[in-house]
Amino acid sequence: MQFLYGSGEAAALSYQAFFGLANYIISMASDRAVGHDLRSVVMSPGSTLDAPIFEPCGDKPLAVVLDIDETAVLNLGFEADAASGVPYDQARWDAWERTGGGDVTAVPGALDMVKAAKAENVAVVFNSNRSTVNADKTAAMLAGLGFAPVVHGDTLWLQGDAASTGSGKDARRWAIAKKYCVIAMAGDQLGDFTDLFNASAQAFEARRASVGGRYTSVLWGHGWFILPNPVYGSALKGAMGEVFPLDKRWTPPAAGSPATTAPAPEIKEK
Amino acid sequence: MQFLYGSGEAAALSYQAFFGLANYIISMASDRAVGHDLRSVVMSPGSTLDAPIFEPCGDKPLAVVLDIDETAVLNLGFEADAASGVPYDQARWDAWERTGGGDVTAVPGALDMVKAAKAENVAVVFNSNRSTVNADKTAAMLAGLGFAPVVHGDTLWLQGDAASTGSGKDARRWAIAKKYCVIAMAGDQLGDFTDLFNASAQAFEARRASVGGRYTSVLWGHGWFILPNPVYGSALKGAMGEVFPLDKRWTPPAAGSPATTAPAPEIKEK
Repeated sequence: MQFLYGSGEAAALSYQAFFGLANYIISMASDRAVGHDLRSVVMSPGSTLDAPIFEPCGDKPLAVVLDIDETAVLNLGFEADAASGVPYDQARWDAWERTGGGDVTAVPGALDMVKAAKAENVAVVFNSNRSTVNADKTAAMLAGLGFAPVVHGDTLWLQGDAASTGSGKDARRWAIAKKYCVIAMAGDQLGDFTDLFNASAQAFEARRASVGGRYTSVLWGHGWFILPNPVYGSALKGAMGEVFPLDKRWTPPAAGSPATTAPAPEIKEK
Repeated sequence: MQFLYGSGEAAALSYQAFFGLANYIISMASDRAVGHDLRSVVMSPGSTLDAPIFEPCGDKPLAVVLDIDETAVLNLGFEADAASGVPYDQARWDAWERTGGGDVTAVPGALDMVKAAKAENVAVVFNSNRSTVNADKTAAMLAGLGFAPVVHGDTLWLQGDAASTGSGKDARRWAIAKKYCVIAMAGDQLGDFTDLFNASAQAFEARRASVGGRYTSVLWGHGWFILPNPVYGSALKGAMGEVFPLDKRWTPPAAGSPATTAPAPEIKEK
């Protein structure tokens, strides 16, 4: 939480991602203006990570698709409350969707990116697993931060919309891509880009899939833009054996082995 | 640790940063090739965050300056050992510099960026707070991963070089900038870009400085490239009151207040 909500490093990471996205929007809008054919960055049905299919855009209006939580919005109030040690539960989160709209802030750089999108006539569309029941509260929260216009079913898609089930977001992505040419997406979870990532049972499989595929590695920063979130989500699974490969283990040499007398730096300052 | 060393999300963030850096290198090398004047992204002596000075490059050879730990190299063996609960100490870190060279891996995307730099004839220079005493071990570790050539005093600068003191890196940055036109820098700590950030006593000051200055915010992803590190370093300071603003606190409404019956999503899946 210190890292994500309090540090300059995380703010810089967010700016870097949104700066890249803003530039990408300008570049794609410019391509459209000179008549280049664009394709969506939403993987179509039938895709695999190694053989993705991206639909051509035709003349659909351009859009960028954003996740909401910890992508466009920092849930400061909810997380400050959680920091006191309260365990997560869904009723608490539901109460947050309904009553927390004043205790949030925009992710650093997100509104600069929105400004660039508006200048290029590119729609900003939200795809979130927040509840449809609280759609008006979520729309008001986003509008309050400066993300308007937010219209449920057009620029706001929530859990259950487009017959989506569970936490998958593909059904909504496909619905959005029917109307818009999705030139870019941004999120803090791999599932914000394609549900295909959710098939990875183990952390190291997801890690390999995220950057090891024939196409996925080149999409990061080039159509897919990821924001940091070490606080919750799919990035935090993985037991010791998955996170640290067995062939990269180390223990310090026994006392008495040769040592230098030079002062070593504090790790916090490297 | 799960996030940084095990997740696809962190690997994607790293790829995104290095992909941006590789593109930036190509763009700057192309500018140089057509005769544009370049300037260094190292802040010169006398700079402030609000009024930075960047030296013109003249015809110096181009270079990108990288931090080592958790920027170019993931210290898997050291952190797996630390994960067992061993507290950090400098003797242990010193032993790691001397004996851990086989238990590391390159940060995802770093070697792709180096390949792009080599293709453009841009030198890769390391600026680290590792000890000069272990320079040969550190150079061998980097070479083993594919970062060669690594030459102490030319493409490898360590704590104490260039009369640097403590954990500050400016003295070495200025020494590097005397020889090279530093078109870009990459690091995981704000201090990898300018020591001016180290003056922030409180977390929220560093956060504001990192993206709130007249120039700093536009450098992220545009000369300055930041890598994620929520495991150690300057990003992890900050008490509750600095991380979560007092005007963004929230507690759930008391039981009995209106509630929906809709199932709320699990936070891990938003």
